[in-house]
Amino acid sequence: MSNEQTIADLGEIEALRRTVGRLNPGDFTLVGSGDDAAVVATTDNSFVVTTDTMIEDHDFRLDWSTFFALGYKAVATNLSDVAAMGAKPTALVVSLAVPKSTRIASLEEFAYGLRAACEQLSPGVAVVGGDLASSEKVFISVTAHGQLEGRAPVLRSGAKAGDLVAVAGLLGHAAAGLDILRTDREDRIMAYDSFVEKQLQPKPPIASGVSAALAGATSMIDISDALSLDAARVAKASEVAIHLSRKDLDGFCAMVEEPALALGAVAIDWVLHGGEDHSLLATFPADAKLPREFKVIGKVTEGSGVFLDGEPIPANGWDSVVG
Amino acid sequence: MSNEQTIADLGEIEALRRTVGRLNPGDFTLVGSGDDAAVVATTDNSFVVTTDTMIEDHDFRLDWSTFFALGYKAVATNLSDVAAMGAKPTALVVSLAVPKSTRIASLEEFAYGLRAACEQLSPGVAVVGGDLASSEKVFISVTAHGQLEGRAPVLRSGAKAGDLVAVAGLLGHAAAGLDILRTDREDRIMAYDSFVEKQLQPKPPIASGVSAALAGATSMIDISDALSLDAARVAKASEVAIHLSRKDLDGFCAMVEEPALALGAVAIDWVLHGGEDHSLLATFPADAKLPREFKVIGKVTEGSGVFLDGEPIPANGWDSVVG
Repeated sequence: MSNEQTIADLGEIEALRRTVGRLNPGDFTLVGSGDDAAVVATTDNSFVVTTDTMIEDHDFRLDWSTFFALGYKAVATNLSDVAAMGAKPTALVVSLAVPKSTRIASLEEFAYGLRAACEQLSPGVAVVGGDLASSEKVFISVTAHGQLEGRAPVLRSGAKAGDLVAVAGLLGHAAAGLDILRTDREDRIMAYDSFVEKQLQPKPPIASGVSAALAGATSMIDISDALSLDAARVAKASEVAIHLSRKDLDGFCAMVEEPALALGAVAIDWVLHGGEDHSLLATFPADAKLPREFKVIGKVTEGSGVFLDGEPIPANGWDSVVG
Repeated sequence: MSNEQTIADLGEIEALRRTVGRLNPGDFTLVGSGDDAAVVATTDNSFVVTTDTMIEDHDFRLDWSTFFALGYKAVATNLSDVAAMGAKPTALVVSLAVPKSTRIASLEEFAYGLRAACEQLSPGVAVVGGDLASSEKVFISVTAHGQLEGRAPVLRSGAKAGDLVAVAGLLGHAAAGLDILRTDREDRIMAYDSFVEKQLQPKPPIASGVSAALAGATSMIDISDALSLDAARVAKASEVAIHLSRKDLDGFCAMVEEPALALGAVAIDWVLHGGEDHSLLATFPADAKLPREFKVIGKVTEGSGVFLDGEPIPANGWDSVVG
């Protein structure tokens, strides 16, 4: 069959069959695609579940992203929320709606993106079920699951005065990538393709969620919206203040300094207020041995709010409705 | 605050807060909405998971359905897939995308619909998380979970020659309701409102999934697309033939005879080829004691395909892509 065929040519069943055929089997899949529901193994008597949706022209643009990157990002961002609970990802289900004119080759690319993200970011995890429908715009809704392996979940509300604040992963790269894409200048997009890739196909530190839990993290959150906004969420839920240190953020700023100079942007703004890196922000007791991928960026005190070198930081971030 | 406010006025966080505030807590919710993910209890080391999406103008029309009915139906159709595995539903997550101009009151109605379906169809189940975004069209993606309580899942592939074929729930009512709505005649819609309600706000027999499993069901499927099509899926997966008896379907036909006469439709066509009743089609060993809500409609033999009084039935049903 030709890859020029559209899903309207093939129908849902055949299009789904060809898409599902591209997925990996997964270590936790007891019953996979093809029945009314899937059955997933979990090591203890609970499971972690989170869902997130990506919508064309709201969360992504088809002239910027390939279907491979969309599949990859949809998995990455959801696994990151599972990781932020201190859980090990086990399985995902994916609902995809696309125009009837979409080529089956695009669906296959999407499936390869799902698979690549599973295999690279959290080996053993797999897409175990899904749904394909038609719509004018592309909609991608993913639900991800994980297991706590007997541990308590790491919530946003557990930070204590005296704790260290630390980050695993990058800050400001995805925001830099977005601003580079927005210049619409091919030369810049090519010059800074590693930042663009962080925006279109992020690789969050999924395994660091379990590492943090094992190291005694008292709170954790996935930095999806912005360091400033997500730190404020932890501060509010934990009823504490979070003090960030400019000096400790210098290393993060240095990594985005070059595109910032080229674009006339301010590196610290990307680092503090840029979203979509899906790094992990965690707090640890002062005497904890932090996993090596976590960098200390501040501390927790009594009080409320988020501060940089003592000055309050306004919580600027992304609102998925207001945009 | 006024209910005339839109979600654009309030933003995602506040709109979500007011929506989540209308939900029931649930018996299986260890960690509910408000963190990166929820945590759900399950009685054994596995969980059942299924997902389905409803898209405006493809799966529903806003001039036919209230937001309450949409929330209700989204839960009902997904719980039905959990039930069809022989599982007890435990928790759902819901992704909703709506235009920015949507009134917050509509979101609250939607949440009440979610809650009513949980409480009426499967007490103890609850929505434990979700996602709110903006889009031009309304998009509802639900993922539902269940627990097997130590039993093996009831698959589509277990039907054996000699088994009885039985149905719990209605056949042809949702299809009748859809054809009545399509007449666009207010008098008919009012005259046959009980059928219209089955289309817009179905009440599938969720608890019958567990009853069937306990009674030894060898296969089971949720009749979402059509008796003919879903029976063909069981026949194919189980490598058997399914023989339906016209006489055994007479009772189902009688229940939709009145609107069929009024519309010039054929009752048996609705019963065989109508979708969206979300009844359960199961097979049982001939000596099984069937739960009382299951009515025998045929038997399983060696062979392949689906037959009515010995004649092959074409598998006409709904394809969510081709429509």
